[in-house]
Amino acid sequence: MNAHTPFSRADADHMARALRLAERGLYTTDPNPRVGCVLVKAGRVVGEGWHRKAGGPHAEIEALAVAGAEARGATAYVNLEPCCHHGRTPPCTEALIAAGITRVVAALEDPNPKVAGAGLARLAAAGIDTACGLLAGDALNLNRGFCQRMATGRPWLRSKLAMSLDGRTAMASGESRWITGADARRDVHRLRARSSAIVTGIGTALADDPELTARLGEDAGAIVQPIRIVLDSQFRLPSTARLADGRVRTVVLTTAAGRAARADIPATLEAVALPTGAEDRIDLLTVVEWLGRAGCNEVLVEAGPTLNGALLRAGLVDEWIVYLAPVVLGDQARGLFHLPGLSRMADRHELRLADTRQIGQDIRLSFLKA
Amino acid sequence: MNAHTPFSRADADHMARALRLAERGLYTTDPNPRVGCVLVKAGRVVGEGWHRKAGGPHAEIEALAVAGAEARGATAYVNLEPCCHHGRTPPCTEALIAAGITRVVAALEDPNPKVAGAGLARLAAAGIDTACGLLAGDALNLNRGFCQRMATGRPWLRSKLAMSLDGRTAMASGESRWITGADARRDVHRLRARSSAIVTGIGTALADDPELTARLGEDAGAIVQPIRIVLDSQFRLPSTARLADGRVRTVVLTTAAGRAARADIPATLEAVALPTGAEDRIDLLTVVEWLGRAGCNEVLVEAGPTLNGALLRAGLVDEWIVYLAPVVLGDQARGLFHLPGLSRMADRHELRLADTRQIGQDIRLSFLKA
Repeated sequence: MNAHTPFSRADADHMARALRLAERGLYTTDPNPRVGCVLVKAGRVVGEGWHRKAGGPHAEIEALAVAGAEARGATAYVNLEPCCHHGRTPPCTEALIAAGITRVVAALEDPNPKVAGAGLARLAAAGIDTACGLLAGDALNLNRGFCQRMATGRPWLRSKLAMSLDGRTAMASGESRWITGADARRDVHRLRARSSAIVTGIGTALADDPELTARLGEDAGAIVQPIRIVLDSQFRLPSTARLADGRVRTVVLTTAAGRAARADIPATLEAVALPTGAEDRIDLLTVVEWLGRAGCNEVLVEAGPTLNGALLRAGLVDEWIVYLAPVVLGDQARGLFHLPGLSRMADRHELRLADTRQIGQDIRLSFLKA
Repeated sequence: MNAHTPFSRADADHMARALRLAERGLYTTDPNPRVGCVLVKAGRVVGEGWHRKAGGPHAEIEALAVAGAEARGATAYVNLEPCCHHGRTPPCTEALIAAGITRVVAALEDPNPKVAGAGLARLAAAGIDTACGLLAGDALNLNRGFCQRMATGRPWLRSKLAMSLDGRTAMASGESRWITGADARRDVHRLRARSSAIVTGIGTALADDPELTARLGEDAGAIVQPIRIVLDSQFRLPSTARLADGRVRTVVLTTAAGRAARADIPATLEAVALPTGAEDRIDLLTVVEWLGRAGCNEVLVEAGPTLNGALLRAGLVDEWIVYLAPVVLGDQARGLFHLPGLSRMADRHELRLADTRQIGQDIRLSFLKA
């Protein structure tokens, strides 16, 4: 904190606490954002709350309930601007005003066009001291998917890759279990759990028969399972696949021709016909926009080199998460990205390294768009 | 430091200083080890020195010269046990005794069979208090090549790989300049400068026409340039290659047949015939042993997938240094390791991650044997 910011050290500490509370909803708030709220009066925390799940009370309402009459004269710290519109619940702005809150500090403006500054404006009009922008970077990271969907209609698309140190994801035979260690595989389940949907291609679905659920054990509490999405232009996914087990909502994104040709669509699968792009494949931009319309904030892609190569070319992936294991599989093994026609160094795809960390014996690298 | 070690906090500080002095010889002491010496009397440093180059005075002698009469009653800190044999210079043990040093603390026993504890024993026999093992890990890292050569006759073999995030080292055409950024490339010159030799294969020599010298600018001082080694069973290296420019000692390791068939061996190249192994290739273990006999402590391999694959299979590389750039080259591009016949996950090669750091926009990973 320096002299040019309206925020004190204590403000930052309380906002950091609000962010930690918000994180408790990491696996459960979909399609809503993760929000925490801390109420502080004369330096003392008088109420805390966080949003648990869509349809349930917002963080501010939870915190106000804890504080009761103590809320009068308190400052509210929230990592997202309070809502001022009637959604499934009444607007938080009115509750804060009614409770006698005198100052509201938000980390981030709500990018939801129904709010977008109007929440803070409503509070200011009611005589409340408002400020915005404290720990905004952390707040954005926590709700990057929600923010991107609100701003652009598209989810935050992550693709996860697990490779040997020589950049191979499977033997030539397709054998791929396991390249990375148990800690990295558990980390993938955390990525799944925070995602609204997991996308795979029909090639991977047929080869690996994956379950694509988030399995974190009992400690993780009630995870809202991500929707499973299969890109399957000819609708080849068999009714006997694990993805058709009916345990989790599963959508086959196919073409009109693919859906029409399939006689026995199991009741456990939703079939959605999307327009085709090049080579009668499903158009990937259409897929991403469909995911946004379906309310997906963060989407995890777990796919093979064909789909990943196509997504890279289309520039549709926001974040690549690469788990690198200290093993060598050799040049007969399968690569990460199928990129036919890429033959000159000048045509290479550039990304930007955002994060590196060791997970067990493996390394996790995160890359964003350059 | 805890109660069970004979070393004090001050001992550790002085040894750390000796190690920093020793590092000044990183690029110049070959084939000798890097050694620093600090003389301390009543808590005050009375002399410091380090070994600059083979044939020149050892670190202890440099430090004693600085201290003069002040050496009497002082403690000597050295990162390697003082020598007790006549090499190019007289034994340091006798100089330490003659100067009246009363305590000698070494980080590491000298693995040279001519020393191997006899130096400390000689000092103890002269009534000097001796101790060994302080900061031994750091001391070993600094002279890993020398120690391994003394213990086994083989140098410490490092192979450097520069790859895209999808594990590719060049386009299918061979185009490879540049995958990594300027900072990583400068780091490679530091690796070269600390090496006794740089090894490449004839394939890389023909394709890239590399210079394989250590170029660090004037700040680095007088680097002892590593010997350039080309593995070239049929002696195909042209006289016009940069490696034949005569600026640095260059050895072509070939076969008797290869040497005999070459009519015009340039005066700038030494040709050494080694026995052949499988498929009339040069036997790689023989190469490594030849490097040891040539006095090489650290050897850097800069080669393509064929030689790296063969070295990996033979288990001859001690350390793999992988520079990973945030770019994608696609599955038509060239891989790191040519490993024909590796088709089952169970047969993968396992390594151990030893270090990760960011260098510019790239990541440097270091792997040791598992």
